Amino acid sequence: MHFNGTSWHTVWHDPGDPAAVHIIDQRALPFRFVTERLTCVAEVVAAICGMHVRGAGCIGATAAWGMYLAAREGTVEASAALLINTRPTAVNLAWAVERQLRNIAAAATGKVEAARRGAQEICEEDIAACRAIGRHGLALIASLAAEKHGPVNILTHCNAGWLAFVDVGSATAPIYAAHDAGLPVHVWVDETRPRNQGARLTAWELAAHGVPHTLITDNAGGHLMQRGHVDMVLTGADRVTRSGDVANKIGTYLKALAARDCGVPFYVALPSSTFDMSLTNGMTIPIEERGADEVLRMEDADGSIAVCAPGTPAANPAFDITPARLVTGLITERGICGATEEEIGALLR
Amino acid sequence: MHFNGTSWHTVWHDPGDPAAVHIIDQRALPFRFVTERLTCVAEVVAAICGMHVRGAGCIGATAAWGMYLAAREGTVEASAALLINTRPTAVNLAWAVERQLRNIAAAATGKVEAARRGAQEICEEDIAACRAIGRHGLALIASLAAEKHGPVNILTHCNAGWLAFVDVGSATAPIYAAHDAGLPVHVWVDETRPRNQGARLTAWELAAHGVPHTLITDNAGGHLMQRGHVDMVLTGADRVTRSGDVANKIGTYLKALAARDCGVPFYVALPSSTFDMSLTNGMTIPIEERGADEVLRMEDADGSIAVCAPGTPAANPAFDITPARLVTGLITERGICGATEEEIGALLR
Repeated sequence: MHFNGTSWHTVWHDPGDPAAVHIIDQRALPFRFVTERLTCVAEVVAAICGMHVRGAGCIGATAAWGMYLAAREGTVEASAALLINTRPTAVNLAWAVERQLRNIAAAATGKVEAARRGAQEICEEDIAACRAIGRHGLALIASLAAEKHGPVNILTHCNAGWLAFVDVGSATAPIYAAHDAGLPVHVWVDETRPRNQGARLTAWELAAHGVPHTLITDNAGGHLMQRGHVDMVLTGADRVTRSGDVANKIGTYLKALAARDCGVPFYVALPSSTFDMSLTNGMTIPIEERGADEVLRMEDADGSIAVCAPGTPAANPAFDITPARLVTGLITERGICGATEEEIGALLR
Repeated sequence: MHFNGTSWHTVWHDPGDPAAVHIIDQRALPFRFVTERLTCVAEVVAAICGMHVRGAGCIGATAAWGMYLAAREGTVEASAALLINTRPTAVNLAWAVERQLRNIAAAATGKVEAARRGAQEICEEDIAACRAIGRHGLALIASLAAEKHGPVNILTHCNAGWLAFVDVGSATAPIYAAHDAGLPVHVWVDETRPRNQGARLTAWELAAHGVPHTLITDNAGGHLMQRGHVDMVLTGADRVTRSGDVANKIGTYLKALAARDCGVPFYVALPSSTFDMSLTNGMTIPIEERGADEVLRMEDADGSIAVCAPGTPAANPAFDITPARLVTGLITERGICGATEEEIGALLR
């Protein structure tokens, strides 16, 4: 996507700088635009653990490039274990690392080049998948636009934008496609406490692309749906089981419940790499518990504030499970399907 | 309630200082404990509009004292209109002002004394009602405690504590009663964006009283209910219709949906003054839209931070409606009843 007149990916490799991988350090957004040069697997691990990069597709692609650095270092097996253990919920991470392990193992010689080519392919496929999600989702938005006057109001939670992938995004792909096609869209952006990826990343992305949007607290979406101000909920996913249960950012489940109660369609956009066909029941997906500090303090470019009195105990589960029964449909690069084992199986066959 | 060894109410009148009304300025909590001396109706209006005081019972009681100052000023009718228009959603405000209008009108002479006595009665009734809510709700918590090992986990949203009334609180009354009776309780405290009354007020209250609690983001409650970590949801209300629809802080509806989906009982605690028997359908309750600044910035005692990039548009509806069908029961000073026109009517007769 474009920012300040330049086209960016969230993670990239410069052939003229073979010893490094580059990322946008998303912690600084929207206040500063900072890039970071990672030169060893340890730095890639720190970047994923510390959420310099985040988002299912983006951490998968970054880990794939981490495996390229691992091949250069000759630490392939150990690095794979380190990278897979950085974060537990998004399945794209393990998917990308395991694919790179196969790529490297399959190369009798030239393992570094195999890892480089493999990482590049994962990035290119990520972008192509997001573009295809955009095309499929565009049709949904177009049909909503045909049924009403005024903009199609889409509520999204967290950031499943281009910053969460290599480019384009999953949930944002249909939105960008609709906007670019001249359809009137307006996005309700959930703040997404505690890390505020909606307020900090999604609102910034949408503003940069010129898409009309309004920031709301995570509490507000149900009210807006009750009043008919939301035509569609559209989120990303960190892992989707073979039966269609969706792990996504904490609070997604609450929006899915409100959508069902108010008759608003609830769609989840994801590339196939986000399916975990080894799991049926979403409640078996590991849910990351993050530090209390994310709840207790909030920061911007200039400082931080306390949310509550010192010493307040806090808990910070980072994801929740939206049961398949609440999901209207899954928008993938292969098309749109219902959140059922049959339809997912047919789509992936 | 006690703080730093002293017993406090949220609003009080000192007979030795007849020209004034005193409040705790809740904007400074939990970082500083500040009281404020209000000496004219304009200052009372500013204190309610500016949320120096907030919470259905507390703004009702403060407005009742505002009517006492109005009687002293000889501006009864004009002040009543000003006070009623400070905030639209909580019905206790209009209820208290209208009751004071009747008190003052009924006094042929001694209108100031009638207003003083009327305000004092409203405060005393508020406290007595909260204590009775505590006794009725205690039985519910005791029966949950009898069914399980370990603490009864209660999730609450916003602040319906003693800071939201004159003392004791509505949703907190059963919690304090249970804790004081030696029952093991633990409270999940919703942060309650955008003004964070859960993080700033409820967590502070519970800590001051020694009640075990854990702060969570507004997004987390659904996940905790899915995992069986919540035995009961217990909130306050700003207005309840004759049919049992509940207006309360934005986001309450989402927690009620999750409670229903997870089989967790969802109770609302309120004094009778919070019923609006003139309304049937909750969707006709006026919902206050507050300024975008509350969403865009966050502050503590030392400064403030930006939640998002400058120029981000934001919307800030302050309340939502929980339909009666999602409410397990209403805990009032007269007892517990179902959220139906029949049961509410029988209770209030």
